[in-house]
Amino acid sequence: MRVSDIGEFGLIRRLTEILGSEVIGDDCAHLQLGNTYLLLTTDLMLEDVHFLRRYPPEAVGWKSLSVNVSDVAGNGGEPKWVLVSLMLPDLELGYIERLYTGIKKACEFYRCEVVGGNVSRGERLGIDVFLVGLSPKPVGRKGAKPGDSLFVTGTLGDSRAGLELLSMEKEKYEDFELALIERHLRPTARIDYVKHIQKYANASMDISDGLVADAHHICERSSVRIDIDSSKLPFSNELLRFCEKYGKDPKDYALYGGEDYQLLFTHPKARWNPFLDMSEIGIVSEGKGVFVDGKPAEGGYKHF
Amino acid sequence: MRVSDIGEFGLIRRLTEILGSEVIGDDCAHLQLGNTYLLLTTDLMLEDVHFLRRYPPEAVGWKSLSVNVSDVAGNGGEPKWVLVSLMLPDLELGYIERLYTGIKKACEFYRCEVVGGNVSRGERLGIDVFLVGLSPKPVGRKGAKPGDSLFVTGTLGDSRAGLELLSMEKEKYEDFELALIERHLRPTARIDYVKHIQKYANASMDISDGLVADAHHICERSSVRIDIDSSKLPFSNELLRFCEKYGKDPKDYALYGGEDYQLLFTHPKARWNPFLDMSEIGIVSEGKGVFVDGKPAEGGYKHF
Repeated sequence: MRVSDIGEFGLIRRLTEILGSEVIGDDCAHLQLGNTYLLLTTDLMLEDVHFLRRYPPEAVGWKSLSVNVSDVAGNGGEPKWVLVSLMLPDLELGYIERLYTGIKKACEFYRCEVVGGNVSRGERLGIDVFLVGLSPKPVGRKGAKPGDSLFVTGTLGDSRAGLELLSMEKEKYEDFELALIERHLRPTARIDYVKHIQKYANASMDISDGLVADAHHICERSSVRIDIDSSKLPFSNELLRFCEKYGKDPKDYALYGGEDYQLLFTHPKARWNPFLDMSEIGIVSEGKGVFVDGKPAEGGYKHF
Repeated sequence: MRVSDIGEFGLIRRLTEILGSEVIGDDCAHLQLGNTYLLLTTDLMLEDVHFLRRYPPEAVGWKSLSVNVSDVAGNGGEPKWVLVSLMLPDLELGYIERLYTGIKKACEFYRCEVVGGNVSRGERLGIDVFLVGLSPKPVGRKGAKPGDSLFVTGTLGDSRAGLELLSMEKEKYEDFELALIERHLRPTARIDYVKHIQKYANASMDISDGLVADAHHICERSSVRIDIDSSKLPFSNELLRFCEKYGKDPKDYALYGGEDYQLLFTHPKARWNPFLDMSEIGIVSEGKGVFVDGKPAEGGYKHF
């Protein structure tokens, strides 16, 4: 039996069994230390898997930080300390300097600091980021309560549309297309929601695999049913123009597109905050599984 | 200009400049949190660079933990929480299960815990480990004082000899050869020295690049001169037999062989502990550079 036979999630389950861990299962590990919690997370960007050499290196550096900050923010934590483990082919120095300029800018924006790392030879470029965050009250996938509403931040599906546009390798892009590409290349982690998540969310995570796939994670860990109302999904104007131009359905992008790095969380409807760009898109009830407009929803993308 | 033109240490200097960091420069980052310090470190084991597929996977897993624990122990910390970032080709599941069995055994031995991680596709197997340690009083490369003696733990050069024996791919090895191979494949991080380092060491680190190369790091960060007396280097009986059989000089292995994962530290001679396997191999004085038997010592191995 090979890795591909059991898939990414099957593999993680098997490895977690071997380790006998009770802790693994969230975007971040939550570890109490004195009167605070450490949030630990790691995410890797690998050339030809997560990005291409032709992408702007500053954007690759920015994104390698953002995807990790997103995990911590989604768990109600502030990003704090970063280690960068770099796998390097014998590249032009200028490329790596631009990559690190992106990392530096992201650190300034998110108010965290690179405190160490490691450099190894490798045939393909890889940036493996390890992030330590702090939180007085972390929130994970477990804890969604029947009666909660389901919320998302921002708009969904833009990153996937941006990725498809990038793959077209067009000579000239329209402005709205460039905006979508930008959202794929330079996502912004939602650190503006950290306090809201800490205070009100019963369950929370960031959306990296796609709304439906990630809603499944909350269902499983919280032992609840989630109903998504697709008429409430938040679309950007840019995604709507993209779908009109290329004959696509924006709901597919919002439900199954990955890498939006928006947050997905549940709490009572009354905690909705009109000053934040959050949308109520569904409800939590007793039962299990994710349903879209009353029908069972499967899938989302898989790495294997 | 390419990475190979400036070398690993040149690159790290350049990247540290871009980040504007004052913190980077030890095996671990030391970060105060309340009344304790977090020690953060990361080290990667990459197939064909740091190990081969034909090595026992349990040993690869064990070593991937040990090299990180060694950094933390060398800085006077106890290993605590681990994240494992795995890069995976589509391998046999049995291989990965054996790899994780090695990781699990190492965690039990070192009393730390895998609390999370990440799995990515990759053409070559890579195990990137992030370790969080704790220490009431971390010790780094800075702080060696003129008048200190220089100490090492255990014996030096065994791992390098083991690596050379492995590369011979002999059909049959003698017992002492298997012992050396074992020291390369399954090094044991010196967590038994953590309390001693915390209490007495002025400067400390683990020996991963080789004694001379790592002594250079202490010299540079502490702004001191180090004199090594090669007649005091601790050799194992197995290394002596290896050198006799293959016509080698054990001093070369002890001075320049990497990956011993013994500890190198300085403190007053009076703090020598007869119950530990530590050897006094040199002295610290004012000045700069590393000298062996009075002659300037260069080199050690480089990754590029």
